[in-house]
Amino acid sequence: MDDCIFCKISKGEIPTEFLYEDDRAVAFDDINPEAPVHVIIIPREHIPSFNDLGPEHKDLLGHLSLVMKEVARLKGVQESGYRILTNCGTGAGQVVFHLHFHLLGGKRFR
Amino acid sequence: MDDCIFCKISKGEIPTEFLYEDDRAVAFDDINPEAPVHVIIIPREHIPSFNDLGPEHKDLLGHLSLVMKEVARLKGVQESGYRILTNCGTGAGQVVFHLHFHLLGGKRFR
Repeated sequence: MDDCIFCKISKGEIPTEFLYEDDRAVAFDDINPEAPVHVIIIPREHIPSFNDLGPEHKDLLGHLSLVMKEVARLKGVQESGYRILTNCGTGAGQVVFHLHFHLLGGKRFR
Repeated sequence: MDDCIFCKISKGEIPTEFLYEDDRAVAFDDINPEAPVHVIIIPREHIPSFNDLGPEHKDLLGHLSLVMKEVARLKGVQESGYRILTNCGTGAGQVVFHLHFHLLGGKRFR
């Protein structure tokens, strides 16, 4: 975890403007946006991937979902539409092994 | 809700083979798969979209996440990788207005 870039961002060790933060979650703009709105939402807890989730994370997962909805509101895409996605594993395109969700908006998706 | 296709599937009014089911969630193959593995995971409760989620759904959302992980295991894509996504709103490609998550696997994603 010492080398985890998202842990460093969460702890403020890499200066990052937070769109949203609370004691369990942080949201910030993706540095390589794939849409006009592209936000990364992460738990502060270091969970490598979706595969590492267990019953003990249920409340956190519910909380993260509500944070995503709030991020959509803050970014003004609640009405225009947005996509939320997470990739699990290298084969699915996961690059950073700290659980994270992408919120994409500001364009039309097919 | 009477006209909601996913409510009908959940209630068994449209015969559908469930990959997974419990008292709060159901999972079944997408009829127009976009990948070798393409499963739809829905709550039995009729929630139109991600925008309609509130604190009262927190436990359900956590539960659905664990169901998604179980679906990945059942489909044998936990190690090869998978993507989970949900679209909110017509502009994001949401077609059925009953909250649902896509789990895609069996191919590489960029």
